Amino acid sequence: MAPILLNCMGNDHNEYIKQHVQVKNPYLDTMEEDILYHFSLSTKTHNLPEMFGDIKFVCVGGSANRMKAFAQFIHQELELPGNPEEIIDICEGTDRYSMYKVGPVLSISHGMGVPSISIMLHELIKLLHHAQCRDVVLFRLGTSGGVGLAPGTVVITDKAVDYSFRPQFEQVVLGKVITRSTELDEGVANELLQCSSELQNIPTVIGNTMCTHDFYEGQGRLDGALCSFSHAEKVEYLRKAYEAGVRNIEMESTVFAAMCRVCGLKGIFLTKCTILQVELLYPLISLRQYWSLKTYVVQNR
Amino acid sequence: MAPILLNCMGNDHNEYIKQHVQVKNPYLDTMEEDILYHFSLSTKTHNLPEMFGDIKFVCVGGSANRMKAFAQFIHQELELPGNPEEIIDICEGTDRYSMYKVGPVLSISHGMGVPSISIMLHELIKLLHHAQCRDVVLFRLGTSGGVGLAPGTVVITDKAVDYSFRPQFEQVVLGKVITRSTELDEGVANELLQCSSELQNIPTVIGNTMCTHDFYEGQGRLDGALCSFSHAEKVEYLRKAYEAGVRNIEMESTVFAAMCRVCGLKGIFLTKCTILQVELLYPLISLRQYWSLKTYVVQNR
Repeated sequence: MAPILLNCMGNDHNEYIKQHVQVKNPYLDTMEEDILYHFSLSTKTHNLPEMFGDIKFVCVGGSANRMKAFAQFIHQELELPGNPEEIIDICEGTDRYSMYKVGPVLSISHGMGVPSISIMLHELIKLLHHAQCRDVVLFRLGTSGGVGLAPGTVVITDKAVDYSFRPQFEQVVLGKVITRSTELDEGVANELLQCSSELQNIPTVIGNTMCTHDFYEGQGRLDGALCSFSHAEKVEYLRKAYEAGVRNIEMESTVFAAMCRVCGLKGIFLTKCTILQVELLYPLISLRQYWSLKTYVVQNR
Repeated sequence: MAPILLNCMGNDHNEYIKQHVQVKNPYLDTMEEDILYHFSLSTKTHNLPEMFGDIKFVCVGGSANRMKAFAQFIHQELELPGNPEEIIDICEGTDRYSMYKVGPVLSISHGMGVPSISIMLHELIKLLHHAQCRDVVLFRLGTSGGVGLAPGTVVITDKAVDYSFRPQFEQVVLGKVITRSTELDEGVANELLQCSSELQNIPTVIGNTMCTHDFYEGQGRLDGALCSFSHAEKVEYLRKAYEAGVRNIEMESTVFAAMCRVCGLKGIFLTKCTILQVELLYPLISLRQYWSLKTYVVQNR
């Protein structure tokens, strides 16, 4: 085992070995059929345990093209048989999301914004439940706008915070607002930070990630169709965000963190701060190391 | 001119003839380049007035496949030259949205949820502004869950309302919540209702549309990964919604209505209430009639 893998082993693997994904819906197991509408899958038409029972890593990102490229990359990394170019979109019956399976890794697109990723997470969690998956780790890989960080810096999210820098997600349930915590798994975040210290030229921080529901006015951009604030007011808001521990801004983190907590999923939110260039290099490397580690742990226990 | 067209002429066409789309951002015209990131278009790399200057109707919907099929349908309806199968996605440089142009009609996908359609609307409004378009009508065509309506009923949205049935959209601007009105253009809604009365077997109502940020808990579904309410509580919430004038529930209407109002766009929000089956028939027919009408008006003024 290479030293770099030893360094990111952590101490808490055993605690979630054999842990099932938890749905929190008493109606679900009484239903004759559960249709995952936006995946174009169903418990009646598909054998979900056979299709997905071996999943250990789920990696999600906004863009369908990127998540396909990611799946092809993992296919090569794991030296799986078959041509990665011929990888099949499991959700080809719909264009809402794309989904690719490569060995124990599932790669899914989620579109942009909290409502879009929220639908995907509901159906993913039900899928993992029906497939009786255990020990699943959920990674979100993406890009974001950095706050006080050099472009290219990777942020491992500690807490996802709202526009007022509060670590909470407001969910409306039948017209009532309830609040859910958005703290992510500290252990896995520290493992990944440890991994990053072994890598060259990839500045990485653990920090708070601010989630907005709007790309232009909500994030202080001066180039939307609507803009009612000055450059100075924008800078002042970002300064306050930085003081509150915010290191990057994006559009999905609060509901991701909230649903992971409620359903007992280890969730990792990884984003590379960049303006235009889309690079997934670092999250890929982290995942690769993390996966190698897990394989080692399982083979040697 | 067929009687059916005479019947849906309305009286207020002249008032918006030659009306430009209004951006509300003093910075925009001082910028050397405006990049429409999520369309993969820019004022420097594309001649937007030449590409889009003749647009009169913009039709948007969630699914990329559906908006392509819609563009192909309109291509045939307008008897435009060329093969509708070879229609090109103008946004092919990105997979965030798809966009097709057929004559004076632009067909664009917007994904799911308020944040996703909001990014598209910002960039669409800027595109129409840069292209110096006039007299533009914006249609949203889609499906929704009906409230107290038979499946297949078409709802022309009067007001978009939030989870508390208030006709408002809460927009966060630099950490402060501002409220925007979500009333849609009454004149065009009445024209379309008039159109519908001439058509057979297409029940149509004007009503309020409730916009949620969540498909499962927010809309009272019992089959999400999370469900903390009873069937009776769900029914009670929907009953209250019906009493408040809500006739359907979906996930994009409030920001659509709010941005149309602020930017002086005539916006029409049309949804067919259905559970699984996706049908665009009625909105297509309405649009076709509406387009024929406008052509007639322009040719005869």
